[in-house]
Amino acid sequence: MPERDRTVHRKALGYRWQGVDELPYKEDDRALFKAITRQLLFSDPEMQAELRYFEMAPGGFSTLERHQHMHAVLILRGRGHCLVGGEVTPVESRDLVTVPPMAWHQFRATQGEPLGFLCMVNAKRDKPQLPSAEDLAKLEADARIAAFLHDDLPAEDASAAL
Amino acid sequence: MPERDRTVHRKALGYRWQGVDELPYKEDDRALFKAITRQLLFSDPEMQAELRYFEMAPGGFSTLERHQHMHAVLILRGRGHCLVGGEVTPVESRDLVTVPPMAWHQFRATQGEPLGFLCMVNAKRDKPQLPSAEDLAKLEADARIAAFLHDDLPAEDASAAL
Repeated sequence: MPERDRTVHRKALGYRWQGVDELPYKEDDRALFKAITRQLLFSDPEMQAELRYFEMAPGGFSTLERHQHMHAVLILRGRGHCLVGGEVTPVESRDLVTVPPMAWHQFRATQGEPLGFLCMVNAKRDKPQLPSAEDLAKLEADARIAAFLHDDLPAEDASAAL
Repeated sequence: MPERDRTVHRKALGYRWQGVDELPYKEDDRALFKAITRQLLFSDPEMQAELRYFEMAPGGFSTLERHQHMHAVLILRGRGHCLVGGEVTPVESRDLVTVPPMAWHQFRATQGEPLGFLCMVNAKRDKPQLPSAEDLAKLEADARIAAFLHDDLPAEDASAAL
């Protein structure tokens, strides 16, 4: 167990934390995600869940994926949209998002603003699944989901959360 | 399972959330806590932990207690102090606090400011224990802990987090 797990008080430095590594994702040719970092805030053998902080730079996005385990998300910073199952929703600071089992999901930061969120997740969990070409085609059959995935939501929608 | 548990998006209204009840604690003569409310943000049979939001009004405090299960705390709002084990620490927005097993702990809001925090906790957990007179005497043998418990920390300490 890393020593920091039991450090009683870790001071926040903006949206970084003392003793917590910032883990950038290596972007690859598939462009599965963009401009996103992860910090593991709480993880301990005696806790059955972990709390992580993810932050996307303006225009960044998380991986489009699904899995059996759930996500419990609290938006901590900024503004963006999320896809969960068949719904695209504007989100902003302190909103709560539940990702049910096997729901396709992705978070996208608004242009010009970062999007940071806390994500609680079971410590023991299954691996994420990526969409097949067929899965993507099904999702994109919905015009709003297609616009979300292509970062092409109408401007009035982008401001709907204001 | 309450329906709201799987509601995908719950909008924040300040530090309240759509569809989330605010649960005040009934204060009793023992004055074990003061001016604190609780909101259960995430709880689901498929998640092995819960995420709660606690808020103390200025000068309010949580129960002094200990238990085998751990708390993983992120300060979401305001400023105050916490006692964890033998340490009294000023805390402010976004600081992380780990409460290890069986550590006595209490949170207190600064006068003039609320203190709100997220607390992740195992869904299955033991009941809290309250301090005996002997436990209290042991804690109060430490002058700083005594000052914390009697809301009498020196002013310079109260501003140490600034």
